[in-house]
Amino acid sequence: MKIEIITIGDEIMQGIIADTNKVWISKKCAGLGHEIIGHVSVCDDFEDISNALKAASKKADCVIVTGGLGPTSDDITIEAAARCFGLGLVLDLDVLEKIRARLVSTGRMMSPGNEKQAMIPEGTRVLSNQVGTAPGVLMTVGKSDFYFLPGVPKELHRMFEDFVMPRLAAKVAGFFCEKTLRCFGIPEADIGDRLKDVELCGARLSYRIKFPEVLLKLTLRGEDRKKVAESAVIAAKNIRERIGNFIYGEGDAGLPAVVGGQLASHGFSIAIAESCTGGLVSSMMTDVAGSSEYFERGVISYSNKSKIELLGISEEILKAHGAVSAPTAISMAREIKRISGTDLGLSVTGIAGPGGGTPEKPVGLVFVGLASPDGIWAFKYNYNCDRLWFKSLAAATALDLVRRYFLECLPNDRQVC
Amino acid sequence: MKIEIITIGDEIMQGIIADTNKVWISKKCAGLGHEIIGHVSVCDDFEDISNALKAASKKADCVIVTGGLGPTSDDITIEAAARCFGLGLVLDLDVLEKIRARLVSTGRMMSPGNEKQAMIPEGTRVLSNQVGTAPGVLMTVGKSDFYFLPGVPKELHRMFEDFVMPRLAAKVAGFFCEKTLRCFGIPEADIGDRLKDVELCGARLSYRIKFPEVLLKLTLRGEDRKKVAESAVIAAKNIRERIGNFIYGEGDAGLPAVVGGQLASHGFSIAIAESCTGGLVSSMMTDVAGSSEYFERGVISYSNKSKIELLGISEEILKAHGAVSAPTAISMAREIKRISGTDLGLSVTGIAGPGGGTPEKPVGLVFVGLASPDGIWAFKYNYNCDRLWFKSLAAATALDLVRRYFLECLPNDRQVC
Repeated sequence: MKIEIITIGDEIMQGIIADTNKVWISKKCAGLGHEIIGHVSVCDDFEDISNALKAASKKADCVIVTGGLGPTSDDITIEAAARCFGLGLVLDLDVLEKIRARLVSTGRMMSPGNEKQAMIPEGTRVLSNQVGTAPGVLMTVGKSDFYFLPGVPKELHRMFEDFVMPRLAAKVAGFFCEKTLRCFGIPEADIGDRLKDVELCGARLSYRIKFPEVLLKLTLRGEDRKKVAESAVIAAKNIRERIGNFIYGEGDAGLPAVVGGQLASHGFSIAIAESCTGGLVSSMMTDVAGSSEYFERGVISYSNKSKIELLGISEEILKAHGAVSAPTAISMAREIKRISGTDLGLSVTGIAGPGGGTPEKPVGLVFVGLASPDGIWAFKYNYNCDRLWFKSLAAATALDLVRRYFLECLPNDRQVC
Repeated sequence: MKIEIITIGDEIMQGIIADTNKVWISKKCAGLGHEIIGHVSVCDDFEDISNALKAASKKADCVIVTGGLGPTSDDITIEAAARCFGLGLVLDLDVLEKIRARLVSTGRMMSPGNEKQAMIPEGTRVLSNQVGTAPGVLMTVGKSDFYFLPGVPKELHRMFEDFVMPRLAAKVAGFFCEKTLRCFGIPEADIGDRLKDVELCGARLSYRIKFPEVLLKLTLRGEDRKKVAESAVIAAKNIRERIGNFIYGEGDAGLPAVVGGQLASHGFSIAIAESCTGGLVSSMMTDVAGSSEYFERGVISYSNKSKIELLGISEEILKAHGAVSAPTAISMAREIKRISGTDLGLSVTGIAGPGGGTPEKPVGLVFVGLASPDGIWAFKYNYNCDRLWFKSLAAATALDLVRRYFLECLPNDRQVC
């Protein structure tokens, strides 16, 4: 089914509230495999509402409309819909009684605005509201079903689940499958080049940047449940063959959860020494519930003094190579591992900017070090971008290095020590 | 001016991403006093995009289109717009060179997808992108200006400010003023109660939650520039009288920047010992450029072993009171100050959950400690919420405590030691 979503309200148009209903409804509909063909928002205005409803009736099988069902004078959705499709409004005594009962039970009085809420377009079905006063309406115009629902999220969610979901679910033809492949360390454009002409077995591929990651989403629909699932698996496999280890995971788990899973399954502990990322690597790691199982400690050795005192980095190394150097990264990784008694020691040192760069060591230069039972390495990167992006990229790079250590595929081209 | 906003992307239609661009742009346009007549979103599909653009050209003076300017095959906005309005596409060598230079400067290669980004519709104006590769396009069709901008918020924001805002502002009559007051530590509903009937001198007040903060925005328009500015100042003063020290700042600077400014202006240095926040306090602190001036070091003493080894917390305290206790918070703050030689020592210890709680020490319990030249204090809070919200709330509480120390208004009701 082709579905359009229309949200109504001045406060949406002025950016005063974020229109979360649209996202919520879209997810529900897409999850069932329906196609969402449009999102439209308009003001509480008769002509604007009417134009949007008429346009939707020409292209959508199902139109979900939220907002403008309240008791105040700016709530005109039902009246606008009735006018637009030439339907009379009739006072529904059952609805009126329910509104009265709800108000009384919460110690409120009936107002003329509440009576307006009981005016229902003729020939339509009332959708009762268990959470608030505004009833919903199901109106069929030609081949399109229009659901009019309240804009208050709590009321909308309940009524959508009660009335709309069962009807939408009944109209799903065939089966639907989706897969998300999560990539780090490869630009979106490179992914696009690598995936040119890749066989997707009928799946649709979309890209999403969740900086610093790129998410690849495969969606697939078909008559045969087994075939849909198999095709999705083959499409994912074909993508994996071209993107390789830049794909770090599938589904909802981000880099910290994936790396945490590797640490836990190997029974490895880790300690982290950070400079330019200022605690971000450790904070990401500890976003994951249960991370205390493997994350032992972190140190943010921001000043040179703290590098010497906390980690025992030698003044000679700092003098000879500087705080931002491969030998310092190596030293930080080795020492944090040693003092913590962990299996792994991870380090990051770099120049976040905007100040502090030199021609030899520009803003964006960053070294990541990893000390392990199998050896110690340092890797060099240059992330010349805004300070927060730099931190985010450098932190993800550090976590990704741990992931690659477990995969035994450390990035040779970046290795400097 | 009548403005319509069109956002393009499959991931918007499927509810995978919340369409924050629409809200952001609406606020900017409404803030200038323009009328937003519609929000429309469509898939990455030639026909859908074309229909939306044509419909907009009939009713809006200005159409702001975001998304679909990237290098991959699903990015078709510019091609669709050119086809829709019958314009040819021409390879713009200047644009191509800029894209190449940007890629090279970040160590990447040009791909065919990037070349596509340099194909510009004839007779349109290129809007250069200082933050990413995708150029924007300004296309005039009849009486409507179409701005095509990238969907990546960072790129969109910069280009909107650079190119769109000045043109929109030039078309506004009268003067406009806006002020943002930033609050922490007080719920939105309490703010609402305190501000009931406050005199706003004609300004419009809106609330925005930016968890864990609440932002109060005043907007005001009028014919007389001086009067508009004065009224905004008085309205802000009236709000401050009612909200008091829960307002930590005005404008764009967040809590880390405000606290950083206090530290710098007092010539104070700080070191931070974190447990449950896992590095987030230090990471927030170091988000601010120049923070190395006052942030000396941080320690994430996640395990008890690391609390003893890194900070010298006595085993007796840990045994008698536990890691999550006022004496431990006090000890952490005192010791991090001592070993770092800083003016201030800040500590956080708590139970982020979802596991690890007991009836005596439930999930959400957190102690914040502050050691200063004037004394050492610990404060107790209970933030029983989701793990990431807990971290965010606890970290902001710690930073806010430093702010209140400088204001000499530490929260007595929360003090436990």
